[in-house]
Amino acid sequence: MWGGRFAEGPSAIMREINASIPFDKALWRQDISASKAHVAMLAACDIVSVEDARLIEDGLDRIAGEYETNGVPENWDLEDIHMTTESRLAELIGPAAGRLHTARSRNDQVATDFRLWTRDAIDQVDAGLAALQRALVAQASEHAGSIMPGFTHLQTAQPVTLGHHLMAYYEMIRRDRSRFQDARRRLNENPLGSAALAGTGFPIDREMTTQALGFDTPTRNSLDAVSDRDFALDYLQAAAQCSLHLSRLAEEFIIWASQPFGFVRMPDTLSTGSSIMPQKKNPDAAELVRGHAGRIIGCATSLMVSMKGLPLAYSKDMQDDKPPVFEAAGLLGLSIAAMTGMVADTTFRTDKMRQAAEMGFATATDLADWLVREADIPFREAHHITGAAVKLAESKGVALEKLSLAELKAIDSRIDEGVYPALSVEASVAARASLGGTAPDQVRRQVAAAAQELGITV
Amino acid sequence: MWGGRFAEGPSAIMREINASIPFDKALWRQDISASKAHVAMLAACDIVSVEDARLIEDGLDRIAGEYETNGVPENWDLEDIHMTTESRLAELIGPAAGRLHTARSRNDQVATDFRLWTRDAIDQVDAGLAALQRALVAQASEHAGSIMPGFTHLQTAQPVTLGHHLMAYYEMIRRDRSRFQDARRRLNENPLGSAALAGTGFPIDREMTTQALGFDTPTRNSLDAVSDRDFALDYLQAAAQCSLHLSRLAEEFIIWASQPFGFVRMPDTLSTGSSIMPQKKNPDAAELVRGHAGRIIGCATSLMVSMKGLPLAYSKDMQDDKPPVFEAAGLLGLSIAAMTGMVADTTFRTDKMRQAAEMGFATATDLADWLVREADIPFREAHHITGAAVKLAESKGVALEKLSLAELKAIDSRIDEGVYPALSVEASVAARASLGGTAPDQVRRQVAAAAQELGITV
Amino acid sequence: MWGGRFAEGPSAIMREINASIPFDKALWRQDISASKAHVAMLAACDIVSVEDARLIEDGLDRIAGEYETNGVPENWDLEDIHMTTESRLAELIGPAAGRLHTARSRNDQVATDFRLWTRDAIDQVDAGLAALQRALVAQASEHAGSIMPGFTHLQTAQPVTLGHHLMAYYEMIRRDRSRFQDARRRLNENPLGSAALAGTGFPIDREMTTQALGFDTPTRNSLDAVSDRDFALDYLQAAAQCSLHLSRLAEEFIIWASQPFGFVRMPDTLSTGSSIMPQKKNPDAAELVRGHAGRIIGCATSLMVSMKGLPLAYSKDMQDDKPPVFEAAGLLGLSIAAMTGMVADTTFRTDKMRQAAEMGFATATDLADWLVREADIPFREAHHITGAAVKLAESKGVALEKLSLAELKAIDSRIDEGVYPALSVEASVAARASLGGTAPDQVRRQVAAAAQELGITV
Amino acid sequence: MWGGRFAEGPSAIMREINASIPFDKALWRQDISASKAHVAMLAACDIVSVEDARLIEDGLDRIAGEYETNGVPENWDLEDIHMTTESRLAELIGPAAGRLHTARSRNDQVATDFRLWTRDAIDQVDAGLAALQRALVAQASEHAGSIMPGFTHLQTAQPVTLGHHLMAYYEMIRRDRSRFQDARRRLNENPLGSAALAGTGFPIDREMTTQALGFDTPTRNSLDAVSDRDFALDYLQAAAQCSLHLSRLAEEFIIWASQPFGFVRMPDTLSTGSSIMPQKKNPDAAELVRGHAGRIIGCATSLMVSMKGLPLAYSKDMQDDKPPVFEAAGLLGLSIAAMTGMVADTTFRTDKMRQAAEMGFATATDLADWLVREADIPFREAHHITGAAVKLAESKGVALEKLSLAELKAIDSRIDEGVYPALSVEASVAARASLGGTAPDQVRRQVAAAAQELGITV
Repeated sequence: MWGGRFAEGPSAIMREINASIPFDKALWRQDISASKAHVAMLAACDIVSVEDARLIEDGLDRIAGEYETNGVPENWDLEDIHMTTESRLAELIGPAAGRLHTARSRNDQVATDFRLWTRDAIDQVDAGLAALQRALVAQASEHAGSIMPGFTHLQTAQPVTLGHHLMAYYEMIRRDRSRFQDARRRLNENPLGSAALAGTGFPIDREMTTQALGFDTPTRNSLDAVSDRDFALDYLQAAAQCSLHLSRLAEEFIIWASQPFGFVRMPDTLSTGSSIMPQKKNPDAAELVRGHAGRIIGCATSLMVSMKGLPLAYSKDMQDDKPPVFEAAGLLGLSIAAMTGMVADTTFRTDKMRQAAEMGFATATDLADWLVREADIPFREAHHITGAAVKLAESKGVALEKLSLAELKAIDSRIDEGVYPALSVEASVAARASLGGTAPDQVRRQVAAAAQELGITV
Repeated sequence: MWGGRFAEGPSAIMREINASIPFDKALWRQDISASKAHVAMLAACDIVSVEDARLIEDGLDRIAGEYETNGVPENWDLEDIHMTTESRLAELIGPAAGRLHTARSRNDQVATDFRLWTRDAIDQVDAGLAALQRALVAQASEHAGSIMPGFTHLQTAQPVTLGHHLMAYYEMIRRDRSRFQDARRRLNENPLGSAALAGTGFPIDREMTTQALGFDTPTRNSLDAVSDRDFALDYLQAAAQCSLHLSRLAEEFIIWASQPFGFVRMPDTLSTGSSIMPQKKNPDAAELVRGHAGRIIGCATSLMVSMKGLPLAYSKDMQDDKPPVFEAAGLLGLSIAAMTGMVADTTFRTDKMRQAAEMGFATATDLADWLVREADIPFREAHHITGAAVKLAESKGVALEKLSLAELKAIDSRIDEGVYPALSVEASVAARASLGGTAPDQVRRQVAAAAQELGITV
Repeated sequence: MWGGRFAEGPSAIMREINASIPFDKALWRQDISASKAHVAMLAACDIVSVEDARLIEDGLDRIAGEYETNGVPENWDLEDIHMTTESRLAELIGPAAGRLHTARSRNDQVATDFRLWTRDAIDQVDAGLAALQRALVAQASEHAGSIMPGFTHLQTAQPVTLGHHLMAYYEMIRRDRSRFQDARRRLNENPLGSAALAGTGFPIDREMTTQALGFDTPTRNSLDAVSDRDFALDYLQAAAQCSLHLSRLAEEFIIWASQPFGFVRMPDTLSTGSSIMPQKKNPDAAELVRGHAGRIIGCATSLMVSMKGLPLAYSKDMQDDKPPVFEAAGLLGLSIAAMTGMVADTTFRTDKMRQAAEMGFATATDLADWLVREADIPFREAHHITGAAVKLAESKGVALEKLSLAELKAIDSRIDEGVYPALSVEASVAARASLGGTAPDQVRRQVAAAAQELGITV
Repeated sequence: MWGGRFAEGPSAIMREINASIPFDKALWRQDISASKAHVAMLAACDIVSVEDARLIEDGLDRIAGEYETNGVPENWDLEDIHMTTESRLAELIGPAAGRLHTARSRNDQVATDFRLWTRDAIDQVDAGLAALQRALVAQASEHAGSIMPGFTHLQTAQPVTLGHHLMAYYEMIRRDRSRFQDARRRLNENPLGSAALAGTGFPIDREMTTQALGFDTPTRNSLDAVSDRDFALDYLQAAAQCSLHLSRLAEEFIIWASQPFGFVRMPDTLSTGSSIMPQKKNPDAAELVRGHAGRIIGCATSLMVSMKGLPLAYSKDMQDDKPPVFEAAGLLGLSIAAMTGMVADTTFRTDKMRQAAEMGFATATDLADWLVREADIPFREAHHITGAAVKLAESKGVALEKLSLAELKAIDSRIDEGVYPALSVEASVAARASLGGTAPDQVRRQVAAAAQELGITV
């Protein structure tokens, strides 16, 4: 495979550390496609004969069928998917197979295959994220007016609506999709024809393979083209951010499902039990999604470190590009699907949420705002007055609106009975009607805009 | 500051761990701008009086002057830049200062300030990267025809031109700039008016502050707006990739500057000596750039981990967003500037490079390609024949083109004297004229396209 | 400083990127100590005269006094703490100062200083962790019998005691201390005398400086000694694991402090309020500790990446060793102190905990165990029977022990009234008296053993 | 498996995300051993009958045989290796199988299995590292006097011996082994008997299983025992540091093998060729080792992130503990073996090394030292004088020792002809005879000490 200059073959340890076929066989579809595009171009440019090209194409189709049916054989001596396929091609069609590798190298071949694979992975993620968004929008629409406590620092802050809360995740996913689209656009340049590192002396037509493989343009510098793994890093970094968003939603489901919260009843289909405690129903899927964020971040770290300080052009370190991408793609796909199921099938216990929203003086800010609005008190002063009211209510063990007018007036005489209607959780959420706010009307607008973006009706 | 409900002040350890003023004072310009935009909007919406707004604006201007002149005071009791400024404002203008915080919270305030800061940081990076590109293009133009060994696996592979090699970095930086621009676009939404988490009941006009602060649009969900640090992660991830590219160039300079290579003479201005070895001239700047990649990756990791699993909305963990961004921005700025100086001022020893390009049988591929082209031998077979020629040349300790025709014919009779011109390094680089290839003409085209992108002449 | 061979001084960017004095001034105490030990040895070995050594020692003492009083001056031209001190020494004592650097290099000097600094940092962490352990043991002793729900998957699993729960953290901290001690032992070898990389031709006595600086032994290979930063990585990795433990405890405090849980009342001294919501009392300290885990992991990542692939011996990348260690040490120290305060001063609401322990069928395992013990049923079968009982209780909305005997017998006739006493939470915790189990007696034993380890009485 | 309370089985996505059998089947040997130890203890404590215990032990032995022969079946419905084995046991021996899980839970079971696996992995790493050390010592012994350039900043610094250089790696590996031993010691506590989280009410004997499984002591707190993955982190962090050391040696081999250096001829058995360039012999094994450092660091990062902020006790996130450990163990094992082969079988071209050692004014420090020693000039001044000599030699394009005495005296009159012998590379290395220095005698002492540590003769 490497020509005639080696006196000795690889040692056992070399065969094992060197073989990428155990993982890069995942690229077989892309490798076949790229080889077909390459040989069609070689024929069009009179670099190989039409007959040889036909032989090669038919051979490749036949190999694709074999792989589809029987899987890709793992022979470490053949190192990788490229040599595995070329070697099988030689068995099938003889010496003509040797013409396929004209005007290319494994360096541009693997760069091409891996870009195609990553592009497919992005398209799959995008479809999965769209499904998750649809699930979020459906629940948000249902719960545009369901009141729950809004937390900061996991302390009751202000009442919000569940729909509003879910739509926050819609926004995160929207950014994730945009990030993957940016990655896709930047990825979509064709390295094929860069050969080993310097381009080739054969009169190839790189625009032709670019078009055949759905790329936007050929890469512009052959040294860069075979040395570049930015597209894999872009994918991993977008995956890492996406997994962080999912980890946050997962954390919330886990906390919400705990007995003291009791905000949700997780679907049996996404829960497990215990080998020892028969009463348990555990939010395993959510925990795995949260845990997977760690692994996906690990994958992103892995490739960043491996790429650090590599001189041009291709170095074998770059063979360590694929395992983290494949692993992250698998974990992310599962995580998205699991969260989609969870969002769609969880029962939200709106009674418990409503009840919790009334704990913790959640409408204290409404009192302060009322003082500003009705009594023209500077906000800072209103904040202090309200603090005193909260302190009194807490010491009496009652809600804010259970303080008597006399008690309130003793704190600040400018308070009158008009304040009471402002202190209900319904009034509180209804009031927050600023753009993007939690008021049910605002949430319905957010839902409507999202539905339009997704092309669905809710 | 927190109203009247606390019985005890913070402990010493709390004051220290809680205070962000030692680092978030870096936000002062953005904080003043955002406060001015906020109060102008409050006045326009009749939420504060025009007189109070004027007082506040004048006060803020005066504070800006003080900070500019004397720096920002660090008083841990005031926690952060927001309270430091508001507290000073109260000293300057009295109770009217208390109206500034109407219809906002520190949660949306810090999100706004930090976005503005990061946007400025992106603009600075972009300018720095453009300068680096200009330096690369200038040297590439100069060296479009300078021949050096192209390496894969740090082994001599094929001859390339130095201009081609440098233009590979131009491409990497082009992607970096595009990545930062994507981050900027996604960042450029205005969170101001999201208040603590739920929006506000005051009749604010978020479009007005959006326009005043140069944002493209208001954020669409207030819970998301105060919980989101994607923009900081986008920045850090783009910085990490950029630092990886710089680390690769740094590694090359370090290797090239070593005595056995001797490809470059580093500028004195970017080198240091030794405290003990008087002959030393060390490529410290390049090493620091390479090392900084580690720290910038560490910064990106840091924020990813801190954000993992945080429930909505704001959690104090998010205060750990700024130190890694500030650190990465500082390190990246220095790294870009240092590499720009290095690219511009390094002396490339083209004699040494040319000489090295002739070592290592760099034109072996040209022999194989010649066999394919001239003798219509399948590439794989041509590769084997060439391997045998290399083996013979190596055993004789001579270059490939020093083998006699008889010797070559003994290996394969189809070789004739026409092969010799193909084996010079000049012929080799000239031949690789495929799009993006290393041929001087191709490099000049790449340079011309780049100059056009940059709006410069070379 | 670098001898006479440089034609040009450093550029502005070089001065900035190269200067380590802004951070390595933190090493001044260690640098002075190591220099004093070095010169005393030089004098003892007749390499410098006793008079010169005396001059140098006095000068160093004087500089130490200046630094103590006025801080270390930051002059970028002097690069680092070593040159800053040596330059000041020359001002104070003249040419004799030039003898201090005999038989050493900055390479071994910085390795020595940084080891000494890290050793001090380890000793400080150890003291802090011991204090945290004492706080844990004190509370565990107080709450050896306080019943709370034990969670797995944040779902009620089995009743445990609060003392047992806190002692789990005692164990984690015990491992942390052991990890730091391992780091200290491995660190405690003296690199001084390794010079630039190759050792020195001067007849030095490395055992003498080893003893003077409290090291256990001299390092054994000079190339390794100046290239090695394992001690910094050991520190950072131990710090990362410690911060993970603290992040777990912090997460628990945050969840426990939330209104639906209400298990704890956090001390005012470690909480903050809100700029907009007057009722808030936020567990900021705990959140910062949790967030800091991200930054400390980032620090560990940083140095690992910077060290990757560095050829021997010293490379300037290694200047990036100190900022992550200094940052991690600061963050970890604050985190330990904050958690110690939190453990010591938090009010545990044992009433709420006890009440929660009775939710969620926490004693279901006790029913299964009873079936195994009393009716000799294989555990798996007992587990199934109990599952059915839980299902019935859940559907009736009652606790397990509220099912009538008839109902239980209908599920499995081998159940008799003897089961009821086993179903109380008190019985449940008392039963789990296996070594390390949650039974109050076991907890008291754990507490006693810990107190003995710590040398305290509880 | 989870008792009778679930109305619906898991969804397809749940089955997939939840199943750990695809990877945790690697634990089967440890799982069988631990179950056997557990049931033997249950019988000894009269918790199960001797007959049932015998049945279970025989069944487990039979299952072990099946796994050995046919591999472990992957049935996602059985989730993990524990349920896979228990389910098979029930098929083989009927209801008695249900007694095996008495007084334990999967939580303590998996903690036990995984500790045992990791302990085995540590023992394998230790054996591999010892072999690497033997290879280093053998080559160092051979090359105790072979002169090469010592580099700092990859610039020629001072001559060193190759043996000295290789022994630096011996020291790094020594620390690695010590780090793994520390991990082993801390790991070697037995969690079995901690049950789900709270211990058990059955009268078990944890000392008995401790002894049977080769642990030093039982863990002391059951909540901690099932929540703790420090042992996995200790393993990963030690692996990360070890991989960094290997990456440094790999980097050196890669640079040394490059044509301009030519210091080594890599073994054919650990090199590969090119699919396009027939002359190539690439140091792939070294590059893969360097790249693997990135992946191993990624693995360590992964688990740190996954563990961050997890409340007690077991959370399903912790299922993400095994893939990174398994991956890192595989990569590290290959890396160690590959480097051992490389150290043993590489041909060091001592002629080229010797020649390079004379470049770059490597003995300039020797001139400075001579001035200090012979002319009693303070080192700083000697350093300056030498700098001037280097500058002159460089401008003349000659080596330092080729400057005439007149030229040297013109620089400083105190120089006399005695200086010349000090300027040869042999004299230079011989002079550096300080403890740990590069002098051949010192290297031979280091080699002898190492051989004694390893119990070998060289």
